[in-house]
Amino acid sequence: MNAKSFQQLDKVIHEKNRMAIMSLLAATRKMSFTDIRESLNMTDGNLITHIRTLQKAGYISISKSFKDKRPLTTCRLTVEGSGAFSKYVNLLEGIVKQARKTN
Amino acid sequence: MNAKSFQQLDKVIHEKNRMAIMSLLAATRKMSFTDIRESLNMTDGNLITHIRTLQKAGYISISKSFKDKRPLTTCRLTVEGSGAFSKYVNLLEGIVKQARKTN
Repeated sequence: MNAKSFQQLDKVIHEKNRMAIMSLLAATRKMSFTDIRESLNMTDGNLITHIRTLQKAGYISISKSFKDKRPLTTCRLTVEGSGAFSKYVNLLEGIVKQARKTN
Repeated sequence: MNAKSFQQLDKVIHEKNRMAIMSLLAATRKMSFTDIRESLNMTDGNLITHIRTLQKAGYISISKSFKDKRPLTTCRLTVEGSGAFSKYVNLLEGIVKQARKTN
């Protein structure tokens, strides 16, 4: 077993709520705060906390605008975030393959 | 995207050190504390903490014996642990497939 695979799993992405947010954004590239919240059935506070962590890591960018005179917060995956997510998924895939081989 | 997959990820197994321990035990069924520690390059304290969490969840059992007059602690995957790990790997596999589909 390759112990390094586990150690290399990105802590920022590994938390399961952030894994869900990153997966959503990897699929859609950009999405409004409200749509993410509804898709993942998260509370405002919980989503804000995770979004901030992802932003601090440079994995997503956040822009604010208006739509129908209402504020709209949009989250986008950055190039760095996309790369980190790909690397993370590759590691997960390796871990799954290893588990399948030994069972 | 299926948000439920992420929510269903078992917290006990999802922590990456415990993921590594469970993967090792899923492959070997039983292993001594010392061998796990060396395979995963973990400290005694860190491994003890994670082993206890897995034991409390009923995923591993621990037995103590002697080998060459020295105490030997052996960790074994339980039937419950094996089932929980299979479920966890199935969920991970689904998440990886989903990510591959959308990228």
